[in-house]
Amino acid sequence: MSRRGVIKDVVITPVAFHDMPLLNSVGVHEPWALRSIIEIVCEDGTYGLGESYGDSTHLGRLERAAGPIKGLTVYDTNAIHKICVESLTDDRSTGGDGMAGMVTTASVADKVFSPFEVACLDIQGKLAGLPVSDLLGGRVRDSVQYSAYLFYKWGGHPGEPDDEYGPALDPAGLIKQAHRIIDEFGFKAIKLKGGVYPPAQEVEAVKELRKAFPDLPLRLDPNAAWTVETSKWVANELKGIVEYLEDPAPEIEGMAAVAKDSPMPLATNMAVVAFSHLPPSILQNAVQVVLSDHHFWGGLRRSQTLASICAIWGMRLSMHSNSHLGISLAAMTHLASATPNLDYACDTHWPWKRRDEDVIADGALKWADGALVVPTTPGLGVELDRAKLAQLHQNYLDCGLTKRDDTTYMRKFQPDFSPKIPKW
Amino acid sequence: MSRRGVIKDVVITPVAFHDMPLLNSVGVHEPWALRSIIEIVCEDGTYGLGESYGDSTHLGRLERAAGPIKGLTVYDTNAIHKICVESLTDDRSTGGDGMAGMVTTASVADKVFSPFEVACLDIQGKLAGLPVSDLLGGRVRDSVQYSAYLFYKWGGHPGEPDDEYGPALDPAGLIKQAHRIIDEFGFKAIKLKGGVYPPAQEVEAVKELRKAFPDLPLRLDPNAAWTVETSKWVANELKGIVEYLEDPAPEIEGMAAVAKDSPMPLATNMAVVAFSHLPPSILQNAVQVVLSDHHFWGGLRRSQTLASICAIWGMRLSMHSNSHLGISLAAMTHLASATPNLDYACDTHWPWKRRDEDVIADGALKWADGALVVPTTPGLGVELDRAKLAQLHQNYLDCGLTKRDDTTYMRKFQPDFSPKIPKW
Repeated sequence: MSRRGVIKDVVITPVAFHDMPLLNSVGVHEPWALRSIIEIVCEDGTYGLGESYGDSTHLGRLERAAGPIKGLTVYDTNAIHKICVESLTDDRSTGGDGMAGMVTTASVADKVFSPFEVACLDIQGKLAGLPVSDLLGGRVRDSVQYSAYLFYKWGGHPGEPDDEYGPALDPAGLIKQAHRIIDEFGFKAIKLKGGVYPPAQEVEAVKELRKAFPDLPLRLDPNAAWTVETSKWVANELKGIVEYLEDPAPEIEGMAAVAKDSPMPLATNMAVVAFSHLPPSILQNAVQVVLSDHHFWGGLRRSQTLASICAIWGMRLSMHSNSHLGISLAAMTHLASATPNLDYACDTHWPWKRRDEDVIADGALKWADGALVVPTTPGLGVELDRAKLAQLHQNYLDCGLTKRDDTTYMRKFQPDFSPKIPKW
Repeated sequence: MSRRGVIKDVVITPVAFHDMPLLNSVGVHEPWALRSIIEIVCEDGTYGLGESYGDSTHLGRLERAAGPIKGLTVYDTNAIHKICVESLTDDRSTGGDGMAGMVTTASVADKVFSPFEVACLDIQGKLAGLPVSDLLGGRVRDSVQYSAYLFYKWGGHPGEPDDEYGPALDPAGLIKQAHRIIDEFGFKAIKLKGGVYPPAQEVEAVKELRKAFPDLPLRLDPNAAWTVETSKWVANELKGIVEYLEDPAPEIEGMAAVAKDSPMPLATNMAVVAFSHLPPSILQNAVQVVLSDHHFWGGLRRSQTLASICAIWGMRLSMHSNSHLGISLAAMTHLASATPNLDYACDTHWPWKRRDEDVIADGALKWADGALVVPTTPGLGVELDRAKLAQLHQNYLDCGLTKRDDTTYMRKFQPDFSPKIPKW
């Protein structure tokens, strides 16, 4: 019989969209966030979408893997994964993680594989007339809760007027920001990106947030800015206040040392970011919550494998986010909808993106009460708007950025800034 | 939009087929092997097949879970798994493992879920026009190698004439049996079921098999009939002769004690038979090869999760078999074809089944050079032959057996037989 879903073409388009000066332990977000849009086109014209990092190193890796994929079918994800692994055999390039150096390179093959897998599932769903959630075991929830992701931030990029959020450099600023985001989206959990100010200030900010939002679960994520000692102090200060503490200290060993005495679960998207990290982490009980992210855990099915491992070894599961567009949001939502134990409110940078700036056609993604309604149309449920894609690609060409580099941008304004972690 | 694949009916039919007097550590196979045939029928008439154990306890569990499944779709495997778990909440029945008491009940929910999942995937494949292997990531091999599964056996059931294989009670008998099976199927690996005679005799038999088949990988499986001490002696005797030693001693602790000094990998389908067994087993490095079996590991997708776990923790993967019919063989073959690290020759009892006795229509399963060719037609690629199903169901009604009980049957002829393990 003739083969269905044969891949005819793979198109990778780098794009850029406006970002705000969000602060973190390694610097500050540049005015543009980079992403890659992956389009797989089948012989019958059906196309599927994936979205990933936009750093040039990563783009090169995606391009190298894309060639040999042609001629396979969208069902051949085993073979596509093998191609991604083999395409990296002679890869000596560094970086390309799209995360400003905050994670290791252990999961490079899974990072390259991820957008191809998502695009293949998108097509599989379209060809079968099924939403991607149905390819993942079926929805166990019809909408997926996300959290209000707060950032310390400048009022606007230096030299420009304040953006719509304005500054948030103290507890009052953060509370104002939280109200604004929660008023718009209805989120029922709050995450604060920390690692920006000395720990005592951030502890104070979380306590103020607790007062302002007494009923919402809180999280604090300093991106490994603290020593084990400091982490223990913070954990003790925030006992009963945060539902989990994210990446207080660097590395599996650091997390394990903090976890030993921590009154709350520790979560990570830095110490455990690849399947090879699981055995040593589990051996040391280093983390109690894994912040999954299909962009580096090898796509949606492999993220479900991670979910099963968490269930088996008694860890809980939440979801990490980078700056992203609508294709990623759709994929994240399908995954969470069909993964029973992915039951914390997921993280998303969505509020930091201009509402009208994306590569997908309007109307597919609907927010209600802090949750995204899971699309039920075939595939991911989002379609490319080619005019918007062209615009965001033009942004990429115009902005001149080729990698995410929060540190260099920060040093333009604070030449002595150190991205060293731990810092305190 | 209208829902596809809505489940209208679930039909569970117990069947029996002829079995031969195969000896093992807990007794001898009865004249009939029991199985359950699970048929899921959708509103549009599409049907899918699963196959599982035929013990009455298991049949009752399948029936209880089948009711609430109706009305879901074949894509709702998350929900179906939850139903299977919940259907066991008040279950106080014992047994039903279809394995003559040789495994624990830790994986009961996954055992109940398994045939429903397989039937759902069969339908998913049929509706999408895809073989099940394509739903599992695509074939990485077009045919799946199986092993020649040798048994010590009586010439025939007591009171009956010898069966087509005749007796195998010593090395010469086993070698004759191996030649017969390998001549017919072309298998390229040999497994001997041991635990029947004192260990020295079985060691001798393996050594004779090595001489008779110098190029074929060998395995020995005494079903935990030996103490740790005896297991270590056997392992030392068979150094360089068997590729792995299966379940020499009982339990994770026993396996771990043997593994510490074993010159070859230890494999298991008795000590580690549920996801909850993985953490303690891995902690003790108790086994180096997991003998997967989708009938107790929760179907095909969950077996792939097991495969991923094996890859992550550096264990290898092979496949266990019980007496089974063609639906199971098709499912086993699709799974192995789409699971890269399931690369040992799988076990199958297929040669012990009458060639013309099955519930599927002829012609779907083709052997070549010790391997089964992976069906490429939609779904599992096997169709029910309803006349044959009726015949095998009549066998079930006529034979009077309601559970597998190798020990009681053995004691009819050897009243003092003890199924105690370890025995030596």
